[in-house]
Amino acid sequence: MVVDLNRFGREVTSASDSRPVGRSMTISAVAAAARVSKTTVSHVISGNRPVSAATRKRVQRVMDELDFRPNYFAQSLNSRRSHSVALLAQDITNPFYPALARGLQTTLAKAGQVVMLFDAGAGSKFTRTFVDEVIQRRLDGVVVAVSQVDEEIARLNGAGIAVVAVGFGVSDQPIDWVSADDVQIGRDAVRELRSRGHGRIATITGPQDSEPGRSRLAGFRSACDELGLPSGSELVESGNWTRDSGAVALRRLLQRPERPTAVFCANDLMAIGALHAALEMELDVPAKLAIVGVDDIDAASLVRPALSTLRVPAEEIGKAAGELLLTRGHEGLDGPRRHVLVQHAFISRQSA
Amino acid sequence: MVVDLNRFGREVTSASDSRPVGRSMTISAVAAAARVSKTTVSHVISGNRPVSAATRKRVQRVMDELDFRPNYFAQSLNSRRSHSVALLAQDITNPFYPALARGLQTTLAKAGQVVMLFDAGAGSKFTRTFVDEVIQRRLDGVVVAVSQVDEEIARLNGAGIAVVAVGFGVSDQPIDWVSADDVQIGRDAVRELRSRGHGRIATITGPQDSEPGRSRLAGFRSACDELGLPSGSELVESGNWTRDSGAVALRRLLQRPERPTAVFCANDLMAIGALHAALEMELDVPAKLAIVGVDDIDAASLVRPALSTLRVPAEEIGKAAGELLLTRGHEGLDGPRRHVLVQHAFISRQSA
Repeated sequence: MVVDLNRFGREVTSASDSRPVGRSMTISAVAAAARVSKTTVSHVISGNRPVSAATRKRVQRVMDELDFRPNYFAQSLNSRRSHSVALLAQDITNPFYPALARGLQTTLAKAGQVVMLFDAGAGSKFTRTFVDEVIQRRLDGVVVAVSQVDEEIARLNGAGIAVVAVGFGVSDQPIDWVSADDVQIGRDAVRELRSRGHGRIATITGPQDSEPGRSRLAGFRSACDELGLPSGSELVESGNWTRDSGAVALRRLLQRPERPTAVFCANDLMAIGALHAALEMELDVPAKLAIVGVDDIDAASLVRPALSTLRVPAEEIGKAAGELLLTRGHEGLDGPRRHVLVQHAFISRQSA
Repeated sequence: MVVDLNRFGREVTSASDSRPVGRSMTISAVAAAARVSKTTVSHVISGNRPVSAATRKRVQRVMDELDFRPNYFAQSLNSRRSHSVALLAQDITNPFYPALARGLQTTLAKAGQVVMLFDAGAGSKFTRTFVDEVIQRRLDGVVVAVSQVDEEIARLNGAGIAVVAVGFGVSDQPIDWVSADDVQIGRDAVRELRSRGHGRIATITGPQDSEPGRSRLAGFRSACDELGLPSGSELVESGNWTRDSGAVALRRLLQRPERPTAVFCANDLMAIGALHAALEMELDVPAKLAIVGVDDIDAASLVRPALSTLRVPAEEIGKAAGELLLTRGHEGLDGPRRHVLVQHAFISRQSA
């Protein structure tokens, strides 16, 4: 099922249940209809204080009749939880993540929520520390924009904290997620390069333990197969999303007997690293080597030749993640799992 | 008094007292010498639990004799405070701040501290929300990298939270701070441009409610005066640190009857905005207009012509802020106020 969510993406739900969200009865209305105090209604919702079985049943029946779903965040405030959301970012020095954080904050500020940004790039063991923090502080929600965190996400879920994943889905857990269509991004990059006459296209991939890393490579291979182009291991090098790793990977690719005429880099930082390595080797870009990145960070338009890239709208992803957290807030953790797919677009500049 | 602190800066203290920091006796040693348990020593330090007057006196005498100063952060953990530090950044989409955050986290991670990054750019009223958060969560320390926050800093101080300011001092409060020599940065920019033959130099300033904004302009004017160059209001435009504001300011400067041949921009983002505005107007940079920025963000070396700039080491500033927080942790909030001055350097590229 596909539902238009907003201007920047479409929503895909895995369940058939997709009740409209955001309708909210007030606790006062429930209290009046059930002839109890607002405090009693709050206690029924939160479960924090004992309420007699008869009263509980009456309140719950009224909530059902009125189609009342408690506001998760408001409830949090009442039960002395926080009004804060944490974003764990892979690497805050990659401009993609500050832009994502800005979008998230734009959406959540309207709901009176504060965003705290944590930098996973500081250390590989940081995710565990982060999850400890979030649970200890009883934050309302978490946006996870790093790879390989299934176990830690399970801990967050266990603690009743809403989680939105960016870039990947978590198959066996009720996690909302936002992503670009990473397979299609890989395919589109190859097609754009093919349409410019390239027949030998290499790729510099992201880490293969990350979903975007794997999917962009899968898309690259699938389009190469379809178009009858080679895509064997001699045309594939892996990086770790940084500029340096892009430069190193390009030099390796160019040491091989048969050189590619174009390279698809799985993000812009690696593409910029590759671009500078090519220029250092006095290779004319794009005449001798075309380069395409992914993301469209600020720097993509600043380098010369300016980088052609597949734009992934970071700020919109942040906004979508915020919307998912708010929706989850209205629905509670048991509602249907949601996936927002943001649209990418090829931005043609000078490097390809 | 000036003390070499480390490779990246020098420390200036406003008081004559500058005991070496970081010497730490253990609580065990105090407990053994005072013939009490470690728990009792902790209670004396924290004041959280009653200890008999006689025991308290004995423990305090031993602490004095051993020159024992409790570790502020360890103490925090014991007294159920946090092991987290917050950084409030002016604008996280300006790459200066993520680099600063990375440096801060590098230093504090060694002390078992986690850094949370907050984006003030999200809204002008955000500082108050931020301070509420910090106090409510009883964070151990705060690094403030925004301007105009004297009142809010007073609230943090009142709550017993260590504060380090970046970029400015707070005259009437015991706040440690890290900054570059912003006046000298303005002076050096003018001197570099003068040495390249420019006699009519304009400036695009930062907001004048920020200390670096004011000081860089003051340095610009002082060097112009010294060298007999004009520096009147027709040569001064103000921006708000963003690219767009730099572009707007440059167009204004160039509409005036007598055009400058060079412009000193108070940060790199404004300089990059000015550079692109100049190129749009088909003005040859640097032949017709030389441009100099401040910061040396990543993008400075990516634009073409590459930006000449006064480098302010953001990551080192973050590290220095972390050291100051840790020192404050050892000394408590009443110790002498410290100021770390980081070194800047002119980086000559193509734009000037």
